[in-house]
Amino acid sequence: MSNKTILIAGLGLIGGSLARAIKAGHPQYHLSAYNRSQAPREFALQEQLVDEASDDFDTLAVKADVIILNFPVQLSIQFLKRLASLPLKQDVLISDSGSTKQDIMESAVSLFADKPIRFIGGHPMAGSHKTGVIASDALLFENAYYILTPAPNTQTKDIDELKLILSHTHAKFIELTADDHDAMTAVTSHFPHVVASALVHEAEDFSKQMPFTKNLAAGGFRDMTRIAESSPEMWSEILMSNADNVVSQIDQFTAQLHVVKDLIKAKQHEQLWEFFDQARELRSQMPIHKGAMANFYDLFISIPDRSDVIHEILNYLSGHELSIVNIKINETRIDINGVLQITFKTINDLETAETLIKTHTSYDVYK
Amino acid sequence: MSNKTILIAGLGLIGGSLARAIKAGHPQYHLSAYNRSQAPREFALQEQLVDEASDDFDTLAVKADVIILNFPVQLSIQFLKRLASLPLKQDVLISDSGSTKQDIMESAVSLFADKPIRFIGGHPMAGSHKTGVIASDALLFENAYYILTPAPNTQTKDIDELKLILSHTHAKFIELTADDHDAMTAVTSHFPHVVASALVHEAEDFSKQMPFTKNLAAGGFRDMTRIAESSPEMWSEILMSNADNVVSQIDQFTAQLHVVKDLIKAKQHEQLWEFFDQARELRSQMPIHKGAMANFYDLFISIPDRSDVIHEILNYLSGHELSIVNIKINETRIDINGVLQITFKTINDLETAETLIKTHTSYDVYK
Repeated sequence: MSNKTILIAGLGLIGGSLARAIKAGHPQYHLSAYNRSQAPREFALQEQLVDEASDDFDTLAVKADVIILNFPVQLSIQFLKRLASLPLKQDVLISDSGSTKQDIMESAVSLFADKPIRFIGGHPMAGSHKTGVIASDALLFENAYYILTPAPNTQTKDIDELKLILSHTHAKFIELTADDHDAMTAVTSHFPHVVASALVHEAEDFSKQMPFTKNLAAGGFRDMTRIAESSPEMWSEILMSNADNVVSQIDQFTAQLHVVKDLIKAKQHEQLWEFFDQARELRSQMPIHKGAMANFYDLFISIPDRSDVIHEILNYLSGHELSIVNIKINETRIDINGVLQITFKTINDLETAETLIKTHTSYDVYK
Repeated sequence: MSNKTILIAGLGLIGGSLARAIKAGHPQYHLSAYNRSQAPREFALQEQLVDEASDDFDTLAVKADVIILNFPVQLSIQFLKRLASLPLKQDVLISDSGSTKQDIMESAVSLFADKPIRFIGGHPMAGSHKTGVIASDALLFENAYYILTPAPNTQTKDIDELKLILSHTHAKFIELTADDHDAMTAVTSHFPHVVASALVHEAEDFSKQMPFTKNLAAGGFRDMTRIAESSPEMWSEILMSNADNVVSQIDQFTAQLHVVKDLIKAKQHEQLWEFFDQARELRSQMPIHKGAMANFYDLFISIPDRSDVIHEILNYLSGHELSIVNIKINETRIDINGVLQITFKTINDLETAETLIKTHTSYDVYK
């Protein structure tokens, strides 16, 4: 089966990035792409992401060994219905990349009950600030979780086959039930999204009485509401397709806020302290801190609010072969930037940089 | 009055930074510092932040023309009571740097009702990831809002005098009533802090059923809960001293979540879309986006997850006199870093950098 035909249905950021990764890992595969509008198809052909592209879904589908649907969940379900009516190849392997998994798994299991079609749900958990196939990137999923939700009749070899096709995403594949996936992402993603948008509404409502409020909406508020600027189409659809779990989170969160309210009203200072202290402790233990940057060495430099200061500091460091892993300005002050954080691979490099900066400047430097 | 004596009471990050800024602007002033523990006093003397330091508050207070209290609000109120009992200089000017303003203003107005003491509440809205006088920084408040809450008997010349003393903080001074300050900061800071900690508790509670949840707690969840790792002492005290406003925010937020819940349960897809779309639109119009980085030019480079890649890119840019305003890795992928964002002062510099990177690498570059 070295000459598999893979159909990427839906050429957006995710579909395009999957195409790039599959092509990188398996140059011998025939990649086809379905997309309704023309521009992404032309881009994909021109950039050689795929070998063939068309707006004729049926014709591409019947020739495919593997089909990956990259649409919002409800649209993917429409395409599943279409696939169930087509004379697909024997043993075709179908997957998707939607953000929720229960609805699509239920549809697939029901639609393909009497067919040899193999369906495995998929959710590559990565995104970008850019959208569209033009922003697609073979590296988009590198080290990201890629959740696979098998159907009851899925066999280990089917999972292995899909993982092999997707191997050059360099993602971390995890198998979960659709129910578990949706319950967990409700907690870590879908409900927090509601919270972010509700915080914006609340600040806006309040600003009608006190317009200066918006000027103070910085720092923590800025971080907490950043995701409220994401696509309303995508998020309203995700919420609708994960309704029960999100409603359950709203209920539990409301109950928790009620407890805090009672503590405040009863002046239970010590228990309020515990509420914050436990949260602090719990978060510090979360794997949230791990990732590519673990075990490296941070140097913090208090820099003035001047546009050439990074350039100045990088000049002092240049020519010393320092392995800079990351560099960023932390927005620790409200409204402006203030502390430059440079991350090094080794403690030696950190110490060299510290000495260089202290020699050339009077900026405060912390480790 | 060029030889004013200024007492900085409480030598932490804020007190130390105020001392540095006052000293920078008015080298002729005599700066004294009260601190109970010895180490910060020794540090402040050694670093010449202040001219005199002691744990004898009364002796320093009676010699001072200006006294700035840098304590948690309830402790500042204890010091106000102490000050009311001392034979202070005629026309002494007292201020503080606490996070809430109603309690301290009420205390000051009542305690000093029959005295010539002038009290103006203060809240410099800046912080750092570091604490203590050792992290103090004359630039800490640069461009940050510095809220002043005048008392009923405060005169314009008193405000002007305090602003002059603090002029080298380079902060943006704003006058507000204590009530307005506390109401607005409840919306933009104190209540969001409750939300961040409650999100952590909720994820933790849920993880007891499904431990893998914590692995998915990244991206938006990470940004939204970052402030939950702040000091529980500070935040429980802030909440207690802004109880009514925070309780009112909890009630309004709960009501808002209830509306969202009803929309989800009633499958009101379109109204849910509007909820998200309005939040997106409202946030995009907030001054949250403004600041030091406005009107500069961003270049985005999709980089592989390799520790030497920033070093590599900076090498390509070095020697071209490019005005780099900011540089950071955006954590757009869950768990790892993926897009390097470099901000330039001019469009010409951005274009030069784009050409250099495209010449030397095959990384995708976006503007």
